[in-house]
Amino acid sequence: MYIILMYDVNQKRTGKMLKLCRKYLNWIQNSVFEGEITKVKLTELKIKAEEIMNAETDSLIIFKTRQEKWLEKEIIGKERSEIDNFI
Amino acid sequence: MYIILMYDVNQKRTGKMLKLCRKYLNWIQNSVFEGEITKVKLTELKIKAEEIMNAETDSLIIFKTRQEKWLEKEIIGKERSEIDNFI
Repeated sequence: MYIILMYDVNQKRTGKMLKLCRKYLNWIQNSVFEGEITKVKLTELKIKAEEIMNAETDSLIIFKTRQEKWLEKEIIGKERSEIDNFI
Repeated sequence: MYIILMYDVNQKRTGKMLKLCRKYLNWIQNSVFEGEITKVKLTELKIKAEEIMNAETDSLIIFKTRQEKWLEKEIIGKERSEIDNFI
């Protein structure tokens, strides 16, 4: 499946969340990621994210779609460069 | 169409962007919005957003889908409460 994932966590935890999400998905903006992922890998990612997050203050939203072609993406302004992806 | 919109703008401009996006969409997290919108209204929103944004440093990403049912949403952790929507 194809997913868009976004988190809103306390600043103390952004580094860990960023590192985790980048292992599974493509980083497209600030705290937003997208990519093709299997059900098993997504479950794994969610379990690990929940270990990092504070369930009372942090949030993680995932939009899932069966086919990437059902989503059309438009970027206005600055695109995250390839260099950013290696920071 | 149904869209998910997310922005990453300099802190000086977040207030204006938030106010603008909330006129057209539902606020679901930090700088993320979703909702049903017409082509005309989306064009209007994009023009107004570009007036606020600095194209060299800020970004706006829009995912569009023809039907909301093609997207499944999952929220982990804290859900934005109705009260937050009225702040």
